[in-house]
Amino acid sequence: MSSIKVAEFSSPMQDSENLRKALEGWGADRKAIISILGHRTADQRAKIFQVYGELYKESLTNRLQSKISGDFGRALILWMLDPAERDTKLAKEALRKKGVRSLQVIIEISCASPPCHLLAIRKAYCSLFRCSLEEDIALYIAKPLRKLLLSMVSSFRYDGEEVDEKIAKSEADQLHDAIERQQLDQDHVIWILGTRNQCQLKATFNIYKQDYGNPIDKDIKDRSNNDFATLLQATVWCIESPEKQFSEVVRSSVVGLGTDEDSLTRAILTRAEIDMEKIKKDYYEVNKISLLDAVFDDTSGDYKDFLVALLGCGNLWNFVN
Amino acid sequence: MSSIKVAEFSSPMQDSENLRKALEGWGADRKAIISILGHRTADQRAKIFQVYGELYKESLTNRLQSKISGDFGRALILWMLDPAERDTKLAKEALRKKGVRSLQVIIEISCASPPCHLLAIRKAYCSLFRCSLEEDIALYIAKPLRKLLLSMVSSFRYDGEEVDEKIAKSEADQLHDAIERQQLDQDHVIWILGTRNQCQLKATFNIYKQDYGNPIDKDIKDRSNNDFATLLQATVWCIESPEKQFSEVVRSSVVGLGTDEDSLTRAILTRAEIDMEKIKKDYYEVNKISLLDAVFDDTSGDYKDFLVALLGCGNLWNFVN
Repeated sequence: MSSIKVAEFSSPMQDSENLRKALEGWGADRKAIISILGHRTADQRAKIFQVYGELYKESLTNRLQSKISGDFGRALILWMLDPAERDTKLAKEALRKKGVRSLQVIIEISCASPPCHLLAIRKAYCSLFRCSLEEDIALYIAKPLRKLLLSMVSSFRYDGEEVDEKIAKSEADQLHDAIERQQLDQDHVIWILGTRNQCQLKATFNIYKQDYGNPIDKDIKDRSNNDFATLLQATVWCIESPEKQFSEVVRSSVVGLGTDEDSLTRAILTRAEIDMEKIKKDYYEVNKISLLDAVFDDTSGDYKDFLVALLGCGNLWNFVN
Repeated sequence: MSSIKVAEFSSPMQDSENLRKALEGWGADRKAIISILGHRTADQRAKIFQVYGELYKESLTNRLQSKISGDFGRALILWMLDPAERDTKLAKEALRKKGVRSLQVIIEISCASPPCHLLAIRKAYCSLFRCSLEEDIALYIAKPLRKLLLSMVSSFRYDGEEVDEKIAKSEADQLHDAIERQQLDQDHVIWILGTRNQCQLKATFNIYKQDYGNPIDKDIKDRSNNDFATLLQATVWCIESPEKQFSEVVRSSVVGLGTDEDSLTRAILTRAEIDMEKIKKDYYEVNKISLLDAVFDDTSGDYKDFLVALLGCGNLWNFVN
């Protein structure tokens, strides 16, 4: 369920005019910008982008970029991109950074997105970067992480709800065997997680828990404490219950001193219109503090106001006269 | 270049009416059917299918199927399907048959089709068969062929023309090393052939020939004479010059006693609108007999007339009054 509070009446024309006013002269009226863009769906933002361009013969995102920088500026530009293009750019950044924390982005877009969204990202990657996502994974990332990432981005899962209980039982056993032997990078482990449909895998994980006592994600981390296990755990979360993955991304980006703004921005922006309400619930259950309070404590200024708006708690400024 | 001779003037309405006449009463006027459908593009056939359905409240393909059987009937139905759906059905049949000759279909649709056509097939596979193409490959096919097929169907190659000569040199060396060691199923061999774009791979094959004396497809077969090498050779052909692959499919389907009608039909139907003129040229150069003569010698009746029409040599019957 989406967390953003969408304005009941809005017109791309009026939004464009108000954004133009907010972006004129020195500086920018950031509150006005948040109160508009923080309360529009992806489709509405795309229309605003189009109408603004037609009215003022300039790109709204270029104008935003020239006026607003820092974490708020970055978040705003990502928010204005088409979701597939946004995720494509996040994937490229993640590959350049290489760390296991960044590489979770690749798992998220592969395993917590509908099959058609992943295809749209692969297409956008080719046209933006003149090579395939797979080629860049092989260029930037070494084995065995490469093998896992390649398999996940190449997947095109059946999105029906059929489950074969026999297959679920057999594959739960195979997964358990690999986890016990600490051989997580075996071909069949990667194949099962990269190919089976979501409902089938949920059944497999259920049988795993019934037969072996622990949730599979717990066993993966308890048995093997390395980067591969971290990404495999993220894979299981993204397939089974993406809210766990994104709740953990938020937690680890605000925990301790300092904040990992890139991860925080990514988790909130990419899921605000998908399952943020579930993520908030999971966050509270695990951390005993609300996700909103966590964001409040760790961020400031317009960046904070923007994230708070996307979390459904900002002021709704309706420009209908 | 397409081989079919498309009628200069045609209307889906008139075509539908003439098809209806040809399909009325006992039997069917097969010559009339060929003279219409054998001279219409995929788009025109789709329109005829639609208009016929609207006019007569029945499916044209169902009517054809009830009236015409055997090799001609099968070819006609495949010809009437949307190309992605047709290739999806051919893929499913190939997986059921399992033999290396059938499995070439999977290589053809993966490596001799534009990336978007392969995606359309993967989507159609999920909706027709309620599982992904990858799941069926793993179900029907054993290693190491499975590994090759899985990688090829999962590919989404960049379709630009950029070539990196350094990469081409390095990958030509890696391929040569694997061929020499008769270790064709190494991960990096499959990765290179399944991921790099077509122009890059053509450059790699050129460097291979310059540096090691033989074309890579020849070395693959000379060094390893097994099913994996056969499919890998088909992969190289489909990427470098699909006409070689399809010319060989035709040759092996007519050679010796008897005819492999399924393979012959597939090669002619799937390529008639793509590169049949190139295939004819290659066929003549390799076999010193024209492809048309080969089809004439090995087939008969309406099936022959239909294939001959698709090869660009039938009578064009124009129903414009």
